[in-house]
Amino acid sequence: MDSDMFAALPSPPYYVAIFSSVRTDADATGYGEAAARMIELARGQPGFLGVESARGDDGFGITASYWESEEAIRAWRRHAEHAAVRERGRAGWYRHFELRIARVERAYGWDAGDGPGRTDAPA
Amino acid sequence: MDSDMFAALPSPPYYVAIFSSVRTDADATGYGEAAARMIELARGQPGFLGVESARGDDGFGITASYWESEEAIRAWRRHAEHAAVRERGRAGWYRHFELRIARVERAYGWDAGDGPGRTDAPA
Repeated sequence: MDSDMFAALPSPPYYVAIFSSVRTDADATGYGEAAARMIELARGQPGFLGVESARGDDGFGITASYWESEEAIRAWRRHAEHAAVRERGRAGWYRHFELRIARVERAYGWDAGDGPGRTDAPA
Repeated sequence: MDSDMFAALPSPPYYVAIFSSVRTDADATGYGEAAARMIELARGQPGFLGVESARGDDGFGITASYWESEEAIRAWRRHAEHAAVRERGRAGWYRHFELRIARVERAYGWDAGDGPGRTDAPA
């Protein structure tokens, strides 16, 4: 189950697009369908590595999509169906969003199976 | 209301710590208190810029904390109370987590007040 929630990523460096947004109350069904379709479509893009997403009951959500390169993110941005869905997002689904593009330089994971006493990773 | 959800950040570059986690069902009260305390404590750290956080009903959450420099993230990691809370997290609050440290290179925001027809930002 957890493996569906977390992106399985290679060692850094790679890139991340952090999309923070707050939803309107409008069109939950249309939004949900489009969000699922965008993830399906992203998975087929060159350079796509993985995606993680969470949204709370307050309507605020963060989606982190991971890519091999900045160019892969740019290409995804130019994808016609993605662009059309972004326009629908601005027209009604979102009150506000912020997008940050960043280069991942270090990464560290932990699982309960590792035990609580494990020494923290070097920062 | 939205302004409490989004971090007000300077122009890039700056750094982000992306913490993705899935909670256990244990100790919701203790976890909530500790999470609020960690945000309060982070706000007082040198180089702290802001934080955004979302967790869904499935227990999966993403917290993105923003910092002026990698050194500021390292210093926060060394903070004694933060280290003690991380240990509690590994002992019972989390099933799994991933931490990625990244350098934000570009950023773009949009608000419903901007209107749906606004041209997308240059990638």
